[in-house]
Amino acid sequence: MTYLLSEIAARFGGELIGEDIRVERVATLEAAGPSDIVFVGDPKYAKQLATTAAGAVIVNAALAAATSLPRIVVPNPYLCFARTANLLHPPARPAPGIHPSAVIAEDVVLGEGCHVGAFVSIGAGSRIGANTVLEAGCRIGTGVAIGADGYCHPNVVVCADTQIGARVILHPGAVIGSDGFGNAWQGDGWFKIPQLGRVVIGDDVEVGASTTIDRGALGDTTIEDGVRLDNQIQIGHNVHIGKHTALAGCVGVAGSTRIGAYCTFGGSAMILGHLDIADRVNIMAGTLVGKSIKKAGTYVGQYPVQTHEDWLANASHLRRLDALAGRLKELERKVGHAVTDDKE
Amino acid sequence: MTYLLSEIAARFGGELIGEDIRVERVATLEAAGPSDIVFVGDPKYAKQLATTAAGAVIVNAALAAATSLPRIVVPNPYLCFARTANLLHPPARPAPGIHPSAVIAEDVVLGEGCHVGAFVSIGAGSRIGANTVLEAGCRIGTGVAIGADGYCHPNVVVCADTQIGARVILHPGAVIGSDGFGNAWQGDGWFKIPQLGRVVIGDDVEVGASTTIDRGALGDTTIEDGVRLDNQIQIGHNVHIGKHTALAGCVGVAGSTRIGAYCTFGGSAMILGHLDIADRVNIMAGTLVGKSIKKAGTYVGQYPVQTHEDWLANASHLRRLDALAGRLKELERKVGHAVTDDKE
Amino acid sequence: MTYLLSEIAARFGGELIGEDIRVERVATLEAAGPSDIVFVGDPKYAKQLATTAAGAVIVNAALAAATSLPRIVVPNPYLCFARTANLLHPPARPAPGIHPSAVIAEDVVLGEGCHVGAFVSIGAGSRIGANTVLEAGCRIGTGVAIGADGYCHPNVVVCADTQIGARVILHPGAVIGSDGFGNAWQGDGWFKIPQLGRVVIGDDVEVGASTTIDRGALGDTTIEDGVRLDNQIQIGHNVHIGKHTALAGCVGVAGSTRIGAYCTFGGSAMILGHLDIADRVNIMAGTLVGKSIKKAGTYVGQYPVQTHEDWLANASHLRRLDALAGRLKELERKVGHAVTDDKE
Repeated sequence: MTYLLSEIAARFGGELIGEDIRVERVATLEAAGPSDIVFVGDPKYAKQLATTAAGAVIVNAALAAATSLPRIVVPNPYLCFARTANLLHPPARPAPGIHPSAVIAEDVVLGEGCHVGAFVSIGAGSRIGANTVLEAGCRIGTGVAIGADGYCHPNVVVCADTQIGARVILHPGAVIGSDGFGNAWQGDGWFKIPQLGRVVIGDDVEVGASTTIDRGALGDTTIEDGVRLDNQIQIGHNVHIGKHTALAGCVGVAGSTRIGAYCTFGGSAMILGHLDIADRVNIMAGTLVGKSIKKAGTYVGQYPVQTHEDWLANASHLRRLDALAGRLKELERKVGHAVTDDKE
Repeated sequence: MTYLLSEIAARFGGELIGEDIRVERVATLEAAGPSDIVFVGDPKYAKQLATTAAGAVIVNAALAAATSLPRIVVPNPYLCFARTANLLHPPARPAPGIHPSAVIAEDVVLGEGCHVGAFVSIGAGSRIGANTVLEAGCRIGTGVAIGADGYCHPNVVVCADTQIGARVILHPGAVIGSDGFGNAWQGDGWFKIPQLGRVVIGDDVEVGASTTIDRGALGDTTIEDGVRLDNQIQIGHNVHIGKHTALAGCVGVAGSTRIGAYCTFGGSAMILGHLDIADRVNIMAGTLVGKSIKKAGTYVGQYPVQTHEDWLANASHLRRLDALAGRLKELERKVGHAVTDDKE
Repeated sequence: MTYLLSEIAARFGGELIGEDIRVERVATLEAAGPSDIVFVGDPKYAKQLATTAAGAVIVNAALAAATSLPRIVVPNPYLCFARTANLLHPPARPAPGIHPSAVIAEDVVLGEGCHVGAFVSIGAGSRIGANTVLEAGCRIGTGVAIGADGYCHPNVVVCADTQIGARVILHPGAVIGSDGFGNAWQGDGWFKIPQLGRVVIGDDVEVGASTTIDRGALGDTTIEDGVRLDNQIQIGHNVHIGKHTALAGCVGVAGSTRIGAYCTFGGSAMILGHLDIADRVNIMAGTLVGKSIKKAGTYVGQYPVQTHEDWLANASHLRRLDALAGRLKELERKVGHAVTDDKE
C-alpha cells in the first residue's frame, strides 16, 4: 500500500513542494530509504536533512527551504507525520470471531465484529460493543459495558460494573475497577471500607500497561473523553480526570482528587488526595503536589541532581535552612540593614 | 435488605436521635435520597447537612445538634459508616464450585466452599482454605498455602511455596513470591543470586492491584497480620512489615528493611534497603527514607511545588547552598558576630 | 545432593582451611545448622561467626582468621556464596512438554525441551528456543522470537514482533512490547502516534515482576546483554540500555533516553526523555535526572527526610531561597565584602 505525496498533502491539509513521488513507509531520518517519508519539526534536526536517504519529508514553513527533497509543508509536522504513519501503517486488528476456549456468561451481549481471544472470560450482564477486541487472557467482570471499536490487550482485567466508552484502548495488564484503598481504624486494626462505586471511562481514552484505576468508594471514579494514561500509573478511588488530560508513566493520583481538562503530568509525579487541580495545569516530572492548584500554568518541585560530592556538601544545609535564615536575619539586624520580612 | 436505624445503632454502639426509619443504602451527602444513610465526620462538611436529601446521618456528638435528620451518634462516624456500608452492601462472593477449565494438580487440597474460576491453575502440593475464592486466571504455584475465606481477584500470581493466612485479599494482577533482585558482580556481568526464601503473609492482609512482593533470598519476606498494601507497591526480598501497617500506592521498600507495626506510608514513598523503621512511624507521601528511624513520629522529605518561574529562581541556589552558607559564615566573621557552628 | 568443601573450593577458585566436610544447603548466619554453609563478606558481621551453628563459611582473606570453622577463602565471598547457592539449590524447571490447554498457532517453531504451561497462547510466526519455559497464562504475540533456555514466569505478556535473546528471565506480569506513549495534539484532543518499532532484548537479561517495556515508535527499544531490571519499572519507547546496567525497583525511564553500560540506578529514580547517560554512571535512589550525564560517577538528588516539625521549619525557606540569597548579597555589599558571583 503506497500513497502519492499529493494524496497525503490533500488528506492532511499540506502543500506539496517538489516531485509527487509514492511513499510506502514512515521512518527516522537515519534509517529512511528512498520510499520512506520522514519529518522534521524541530530546527535542531534540520541539518540531518542534508544526509537523510529519505524520499520525502514533512516540514513546517520555516524549514521548507532547508531541503531540496520532495516535501509536504504543514503547520504541525509532527501531527501530519502521525497521521501519515497511521495511513501507511494502519494498526492490525485480529479477525472477528470468538475463540472456542473463551468462557462467556450466557446473557453477555457481544456486538458485531468482536474478537474474543483464547482464555478470555466475560461475566454475566456484560455488554461488549461492535468491533471491540478482547485479546487472550482478558478478564471482564459482571455488569461491565465496553463501547464499540475498543481494544483490550492481553491479560487486561476489567472489574465488575465498570463502564467504558467507545474506541478505548487498554494495554496489557491494565486493571480497571479494583477496590480503592479505604480503611477505617477500629482500635486494634483496620476495617475495610466497602468500595461500592464504579469506574466510568469516556470515549477515546488510552490506558497504559500495568496501570491501575480503582473504583469509587461511594460514587464513581471518572475518566473523561480523550484522557491518555501511560504505563504503571495508579489512580485512586473517586478521582476525576477531565477531558484530554495526559499523565506520563508512574504517576500516582490519590483518592478523591479532581484533575481538570487539558492538563499534563510528567513521569513519576504524585498528586495527593482530596485536591482540586484546575484546567490547563502542567505538572513537571517527579513533582509532588500537596495542595490544590487553582490557576492554569506550569508547576514544578524537582530536587536538582548533582554529583555525590556536591550533593553531600549542599544537602546537609537543607536540614537546618531555618537556622541559616535566622542567622541571616540576625546579621541584617546587626548591620542595621532593613530586615526583610521572611514570612510569606 | 433494609435495616432500622435502631438496629444499626445497637449493632455498632451508637445512640439514635430522631425517628427510627429504615435505610437501604449508604450514599454521599450529595447523592443521597430518603432511604439512604450518610455520615459527617469532619465539621467542614457540616453545612451540607442542611441540603442533603438523605434519610439519616451518622455523626459524632459535636455534630449531633447540627441537623434535625434522624441520626446515629457515635465516637467515630467514619468507622460506623464503614460498618453500616458493609452491613447494607455485603460483598458479593462467587458461588462455590470449580470451573471445568481449571487445571489443578492431583494432590491439591481444596477446602469446602472454595470457588475456582475459569482458567485457574494450581500447582502440586498446594492447599487452599475453606471458602476461598480464586477468580479467573489466577496462577497458584507449587507448595502454596492459602488460608480460609481468602479472595484472589483475577490474574493474581502466587509463586511457589508462598504461605498466606486467613481472610487475605489479593487484588487483580498482584504478584506474590517473585524472585528478589539479587545480583553479584562477577567481573564481566551479573551473577543471579538464587532466591531461596519464601513470602509469608499473616491473616487479614490486603494487597493492592499490580503490587509485587518478592520472596526472600535466604529466609523469608514476612507481612504480618492486618497489613494493608495499596496498588503498585514493590516489596523487596526479606522485607518485614509489622502488623497493621498501611502503605499507600506506589510505595517501594528495598530489600531486607524491617518496618514496625502500626506505621503508615504515604503514596510514592521510597524506603531504602537494610533499614529499621520503628513502630508507629508515619512517613509522608513522596518521602525517601535513607536511614533507619528509631523513634515513633511523623517524618517528611517533600520538595515543595511552585510555579515554574519561582522554582527556576529558587532551585538554582540548591546546587550551591554550601557556598551560600560559607558566604554567610564569612560575613558573620567580618561583622564580628559570634559565628554559629554550622556542623551538626 | 551434597558437596565437599574441597569440591566447592576447586570449582569456584577458593582455598579450603579446616576440615573437608560435606554441605547440603546455604543459609543465613542465624538460621544455619551443621550441614549448612554461610558467608561473611562485611567485617561488621564477623562477630556472628562466633555464634553461628553453621558447618562451614565462605570468607575473604581478611576474615580467614576470624573463625575456626571450616572455611573457603576467596576474594569475593558474596559471589562465591551465590555460586555455591546455585550449585546446592539448582533452580527447578518444569518438565518439558506442552500442556493440552495451550493455544499455539500452527506455524510456531518450538525448540526441543520447551515447557509450555496451561492456558499459554502463542501467536503466528513466533519462535521459541530450546528448553525455554513458558509458564501458565503467558501471552506470546505474533512474530515474537525468544532464545534458548529462557524463562517466562506466569502471566507474562510479550507483544508482537519482540525479539528476545538466550537465557532471558521474565518475571510474573512483566509486559514487553506494549505501545509507547506517543500523542500529537490536534487542536481538540490527542492523536495517537502509531508505535511501529519493536523491543529487542539481548542475552542473559532479567526483567522483574510487573515491569513494562514499551516498543519503539519508529526504530526499536533496545536492552543489551546482561541488563537487570527489578520489579515495577517503566521503560519508555526507543530507550536504549547498555550492557550489564542494573535498575532497581520502581525506576522510570522516559522515551528516547540512551543509558550506557555498567550503570546502576537506585529505586524510584526517574530519568527524563531524550537524555544521554554515559557508561558507569550510578544514580542514587529517588533521584530525578533531568539532563544528560556525560561523565561516569555517582549522582544524587535526594531531599533529606526529617521530622515533620523540622521539615516545616526548613522547607518553607525553599520557596524563597532566591530572596534569601539576594538578602545575603545585599548584606555583603553593605559590609563591603567582595560580592561573590552567584551565577554559575
